[in-house]
Amino acid sequence: MLCARVWRALGPRCRGARLTAWRRAQSHRAAAPGPTRLDLSGIYPPIATPFTAQEDVDYPRLEQNLQKYAQIPFKGLVVQGSNGEYPYLTVEERVEVVRTVRRSLPLDKLVMAGSGCESTRATEQLTEKMAAAGADSVLVVTPCFYKGKMDSRALIQHFTKVADCSPVPVVLYSVPANTGLELPVDAVVQLSQHPNIVGLKDSGGDITRIGLIVHKTKTQDFQVLAGSAGFLMAAYCVGAVGGVCALANVLGRELCDLERLCVSGRWEEARVLQQRLIEPNAAVTRKLGVPALKQAMEWFGFHGGACRSPLQPLMEAESQQLRRDFTSNGWL
Amino acid sequence: MLCARVWRALGPRCRGARLTAWRRAQSHRAAAPGPTRLDLSGIYPPIATPFTAQEDVDYPRLEQNLQKYAQIPFKGLVVQGSNGEYPYLTVEERVEVVRTVRRSLPLDKLVMAGSGCESTRATEQLTEKMAAAGADSVLVVTPCFYKGKMDSRALIQHFTKVADCSPVPVVLYSVPANTGLELPVDAVVQLSQHPNIVGLKDSGGDITRIGLIVHKTKTQDFQVLAGSAGFLMAAYCVGAVGGVCALANVLGRELCDLERLCVSGRWEEARVLQQRLIEPNAAVTRKLGVPALKQAMEWFGFHGGACRSPLQPLMEAESQQLRRDFTSNGWL
Amino acid sequence: MLCARVWRALGPRCRGARLTAWRRAQSHRAAAPGPTRLDLSGIYPPIATPFTAQEDVDYPRLEQNLQKYAQIPFKGLVVQGSNGEYPYLTVEERVEVVRTVRRSLPLDKLVMAGSGCESTRATEQLTEKMAAAGADSVLVVTPCFYKGKMDSRALIQHFTKVADCSPVPVVLYSVPANTGLELPVDAVVQLSQHPNIVGLKDSGGDITRIGLIVHKTKTQDFQVLAGSAGFLMAAYCVGAVGGVCALANVLGRELCDLERLCVSGRWEEARVLQQRLIEPNAAVTRKLGVPALKQAMEWFGFHGGACRSPLQPLMEAESQQLRRDFTSNGWL
Amino acid sequence: MLCARVWRALGPRCRGARLTAWRRAQSHRAAAPGPTRLDLSGIYPPIATPFTAQEDVDYPRLEQNLQKYAQIPFKGLVVQGSNGEYPYLTVEERVEVVRTVRRSLPLDKLVMAGSGCESTRATEQLTEKMAAAGADSVLVVTPCFYKGKMDSRALIQHFTKVADCSPVPVVLYSVPANTGLELPVDAVVQLSQHPNIVGLKDSGGDITRIGLIVHKTKTQDFQVLAGSAGFLMAAYCVGAVGGVCALANVLGRELCDLERLCVSGRWEEARVLQQRLIEPNAAVTRKLGVPALKQAMEWFGFHGGACRSPLQPLMEAESQQLRRDFTSNGWL
Repeated sequence: MLCARVWRALGPRCRGARLTAWRRAQSHRAAAPGPTRLDLSGIYPPIATPFTAQEDVDYPRLEQNLQKYAQIPFKGLVVQGSNGEYPYLTVEERVEVVRTVRRSLPLDKLVMAGSGCESTRATEQLTEKMAAAGADSVLVVTPCFYKGKMDSRALIQHFTKVADCSPVPVVLYSVPANTGLELPVDAVVQLSQHPNIVGLKDSGGDITRIGLIVHKTKTQDFQVLAGSAGFLMAAYCVGAVGGVCALANVLGRELCDLERLCVSGRWEEARVLQQRLIEPNAAVTRKLGVPALKQAMEWFGFHGGACRSPLQPLMEAESQQLRRDFTSNGWL
Repeated sequence: MLCARVWRALGPRCRGARLTAWRRAQSHRAAAPGPTRLDLSGIYPPIATPFTAQEDVDYPRLEQNLQKYAQIPFKGLVVQGSNGEYPYLTVEERVEVVRTVRRSLPLDKLVMAGSGCESTRATEQLTEKMAAAGADSVLVVTPCFYKGKMDSRALIQHFTKVADCSPVPVVLYSVPANTGLELPVDAVVQLSQHPNIVGLKDSGGDITRIGLIVHKTKTQDFQVLAGSAGFLMAAYCVGAVGGVCALANVLGRELCDLERLCVSGRWEEARVLQQRLIEPNAAVTRKLGVPALKQAMEWFGFHGGACRSPLQPLMEAESQQLRRDFTSNGWL
Repeated sequence: MLCARVWRALGPRCRGARLTAWRRAQSHRAAAPGPTRLDLSGIYPPIATPFTAQEDVDYPRLEQNLQKYAQIPFKGLVVQGSNGEYPYLTVEERVEVVRTVRRSLPLDKLVMAGSGCESTRATEQLTEKMAAAGADSVLVVTPCFYKGKMDSRALIQHFTKVADCSPVPVVLYSVPANTGLELPVDAVVQLSQHPNIVGLKDSGGDITRIGLIVHKTKTQDFQVLAGSAGFLMAAYCVGAVGGVCALANVLGRELCDLERLCVSGRWEEARVLQQRLIEPNAAVTRKLGVPALKQAMEWFGFHGGACRSPLQPLMEAESQQLRRDFTSNGWL
Repeated sequence: MLCARVWRALGPRCRGARLTAWRRAQSHRAAAPGPTRLDLSGIYPPIATPFTAQEDVDYPRLEQNLQKYAQIPFKGLVVQGSNGEYPYLTVEERVEVVRTVRRSLPLDKLVMAGSGCESTRATEQLTEKMAAAGADSVLVVTPCFYKGKMDSRALIQHFTKVADCSPVPVVLYSVPANTGLELPVDAVVQLSQHPNIVGLKDSGGDITRIGLIVHKTKTQDFQVLAGSAGFLMAAYCVGAVGGVCALANVLGRELCDLERLCVSGRWEEARVLQQRLIEPNAAVTRKLGVPALKQAMEWFGFHGGACRSPLQPLMEAESQQLRRDFTSNGWL
C-alpha cells in the first residue's frame, strides 16, 4: 500500500503505474495498512459560505471568520461540505473559496475540500482543481440524482475512478438527509482498500453502522469521522477518530473540548457536555438548517451572512426557537 | 393575464412593468384565464443524450434521432428532463444540446428545455440562455439538496423569481423519485396564477393529487402533463392534457396513439393499449433507469449510446429482464 | 375453477378434496376464468363502528345507520375495514357487529367482513366465524407487524391457507398507510389464480399498479376495488369494478352517482363530480382520519359516535378545517 | 413522587386517590425524582416463544430455556417483546406464558411483560392480567395501526391511562421497524414525569435521540434501555442503563460481559466485544428476523422451535448467511 504523501508527489502517469502494480499485488497478498496515511483525527467545522445581500460570495467576511477559526484547536476545515451551500456555487466559485481558505489559514490546519459532483468526470476535474488550489484532501459526496441506479457497483466505480486520479487523499461522504441515499457498508469496506481513500465522513448517524464500518475496515487504517455533533461522543466510543460538525462553526472550542474528553477517556464529563450540544446541533442542522447556522454564527461573533436563494432567512418564530435551543442548554 | 407569445416578445424591462401591473391587478379582480397561453397538449419524449464511448456528447447521433422523432406526431420534445442526464452535463453542454435540437427540429415542434439548477440565480441564468438557444419553454425542476428547507415558501419564491425573468413560459417539474421531494399542491396552486407559468409536469404519479391540481387550477388555464407513461391514460381521465414519457423515446407512435384514443374518448381501446405499456415503461424508468432506456432505444432503431459514469451499462441479467418486459407485452 | 356459491355450500372436507383436484389441474391446463365468481362490482362504505361515550359498541345507533344505508344503491357494506376500528375490537365484538349488520341489512346487499389478524391461524378462525355470522365474503388485510419478513413467499402462503379454509370468497386487502407494506403485484397475480380468492381492495392509490394488476389478472376474472374515493374514477378508467370508500359513509349517493357515470362512459360529468370529492375524502382519511369521518357523519345525518382511545376527538381547529373541505366543494 | 413498590401494593381505588393528589401537586412544585423507583439496570433477553410443529406454544421447551437463562447474570427477562411473536398469541396465551415464566424463574430476576395492544382499554385489561400473573413490570408498545393519528397528544393520553391503572411500573416501548412510528421525544419527556412510568425501551437505535432523552429526563430518575445489541455500548456511553437485546437469547453471557465492561469503564475491551456482536445481531433482527433468532438458538443449545405462520422458516441460503454472520465473528 502506498504512502499518501508520496502519492501526492507523483504525476498522473506515475500514479497510474503504481495503481496497476497495486491492483496486481492485491491478488497476491493480504492487505496491510500503509504506515503514513494522512492523519484525519480531530474536529473540523464544515464552514458556511457567507454571502452579501446581493448573494455574492463575501470573501472579506470569509477571511475574518478564518482568522477566528485559526485560534481554535481544530484539526482543519471542511470547505464545501453540505453547510457550504456548494450546490449553489459555480465551479469557479468553489475553487476560489478553497484557494482563499488555504491562503488565509495556517499551514498546520488541514483543508478538506468538497469536490463531489454528479458525474464522475466532473468530480475528477474538480478534484484536480481543488488540489491545485491547495486542498490537502478532498471530500467526495455520493452522486444521488439517479438514486435507483446508485448501487454499490456504480458507487465503487465512481469513487475508485476519482481516487485513481486524485492528487490528494480522498474522504468518502455519506449524507442521506440531503442525498436520499446511504453509501452501503460493503462499498465502504471495498473502497477502504484503495491506497488513496483514507476515510469516511458519515452524517447519517446510525451508530451501529459506524461501529460496523470501524470493525470491518480495521486492517486498513481507514478513518471514520462523525458527520454531526449530535452523535460525536458515541462515534468516538465505537471507534471514530474525529468529527465534521456544523455546530463547530458556532461552538468550536466546546467541540474541541468534547474531543479531548473522549480521547482521554473522561467519559462522564464528556457525556455532560455532549448532552448540552444535542439540541443546539439539531437546530442548526436537521430542524432549521443552514439559515439557522448562519443566524447562530452571528450571535457568537462570526459572519454568517445571507443564504443564496432558494434558501430563505429564518422567520421570527424559527429564530426564537433557535435561540431557545441555545439558551435552554446554557449557551446563550 | 398576459399572453405568453406577447410575453416572449417583450424585453426584460417591459416584462418587469407588465408583472408589476399584473400584481397590482391581482388584488383588485378575480383571476381570469388568459386566452392564448402556450398550448402544451400532446406527447413529448424527454430525450436521452447519446454519448460516445469516451462519454462525450454525440451530436451526430443526436441529430439522427431528431430526424426520426420529427416523423412522429409529438407535440414537441423535452430536452434535459431527467432522462437527458442533465446533472451530468456542463452548462455549456446543456445549452449546446438545446441549440442543436432547435436547429434540427421542424419549427412546429415545441422545444421544452430543462433549465433547473439548485440555486435560483443559476436557474435564472440558464433559463435566459435556453431561451436564447431557441427553447419555446423551460421545464424547471424543484431544487432539492436542502430538502428540509424546500417548503412551499421557498419553492414559491424560487419559481416566481425564475418565471419573472424568463423570456419564455415556465413549466414546473416535480419528480420525487429523483429529488426526494414533491412540489406541494398549495405551491402549485399559487404558482399557477403567475402569468408566465403555464403548467406542471408531474412525475410522482399520485393520481389523486393530479386530479386535485386540475381541480384547483381550473380557473387558470393551467396545464398538467403526466410525467410517465404508466399513468398517462388515468391522467388524461382526470384532466391532464398530455404526457412527457421516457417510453416515448422508444414507442413514440404508440404513445401518440394512446393520446388520440384518450382525447377522442375511446377509453376501452385506450385501456388495452395502456396496459401493454406499463411494464415496458417501468423497466426503462423506475426499475432499470436511463441505461435501460438507452438499451431499448437501440433495439427500436434509435441511438441510445453510452451513459456517463457513474451510470453503468446494464448487466446481462438486467438486459434480459428488460427484453422480457417488452416481449411479454408484444413489443418485441 | 370453482363457482363461489357452490364452494360456500361445501363442507370443509369437500372443499379440501376440490382444492386438491384444482391444484392437480393447475399443472395440466391453462387457467380459465370461472363463470360464476361472486360479482363484487359496485360501491361499498367501509362502515364506522359507533361507540357510546363509555367506548362500548353502540348497537342501536349502528342499526339506525344501517337502515339509512339500505336506502342507498350500494352493492354492499364492508364491515371492519380500516374505518371500523377493528384493531380496537375484541374477537367477540368483531363477530357480533357482523351478525348485527347481516341481520339488519336486506339480503341483496353483500356483507364483506374484515377477518384479517396477524397470525394465519387467528385469521382462519375468525374467517370461519365471520362466515357463520352471515358474511358473504371476507376482506383479509396483509399481516404487517414483522414487516421485514412479509415478503411474497410469506404472504402467498398466508392468503392461500386462509382461502383454502374459508367458507366464503376472499378479497385481498392492501392498505400501506396503515400497515406500512404493500401486497406485491407478483403475489396478487399468483393469488388471483386461487378459486376462492375473488378480488383485491387496493387502498394504496398507485394507479399504475392498479392498471398493471388488472392487466396481469385479466384471464382470472379477478376483481379490483379502489380503496379510497380520491382515485375512484381513475381506477374505473384503468379497469377496477368498484370502490370501498370511507367517504361513502357520508356522501354515499354521490359516490354511487360517480359509479354510474363511470360505468356508463360519461367521463366528463364524472370528472366534475370526482374533483369535488377529493378534498372531503382526503379530510376523512389521510389528513384527519376516523375521528373526522365520524364527525362528518354526524353533519350528514348518520351516527358517527365516539372513537375508542387512543383515537382522540378532533380539536376545534381540525373540525373547522374538515368543515372547510366540505363547504369549499359545495357539500355543506 | 410515589415509590413503585408501594404503588404496586395499593388497590385501584387508593392508586386513583394518590394519582389525583400527585396531579394536584404537579401544578405546585417542580418534579423531584422518587428515591426508590424500580431499578431496571442490566441485560434482558426478549425471549422467543417456542412453538411445536403444530404451532402450539411449547411450554416444556420454554421451561427448559428458562432454566438455562436462570444461570446467566441477566437482570431479568422480557416476555412478549417483539421477538416473542406476541401479535400471534391470544390474550389467554399471552398471560399463560407470563405465568409460566414467573413460576419457572428465580424471584431475583425481573419479569417484564409486554402488555401493549392497539386500544387503550385492551391494554389496560391485559396490563392488569399480566400483573396478576406475576409480572414485575409491563412493557407497553406504541399503538400503531392509525399511524397518522398517533401524535404526542394521543400517545400521552394512552400511556397515561395505562400507567394510571397499572398495578406495576410501566416501561414505554418504541420500535419503529415494526410499528412504523417513533414515540416522540416530547411525549417521552412528559410521560417520564408520571410516577408509574419508569423507563423506555428504545429499539430505533438513533443514538442522538437516546442521548437527548437521557438529558431531558435526568431530573426524573427515568431509565433508558437499548432495544438492540447493535448499539448497546453506544447507548451505555450516552447514559442508558441496560439493554433488551434479541441476541441475548443466543449470546447471553457475552452481552452480560459487554454490560460489565461498559459499566466499569473498560471501553477499549468493550469496543472489541461490541464490534463482534453487530453482524450476528443484525442477522437475528433486521436482516432475517425471528426465524433466524430461533435457528441460532438451536445452534447454541436453546430451543427455538417453529414460528407461527405467516412467519416462514429460513431458506437454505438465508441459513447459510446467518451462520456466516456468526462464524466470521468467531462465535461458531
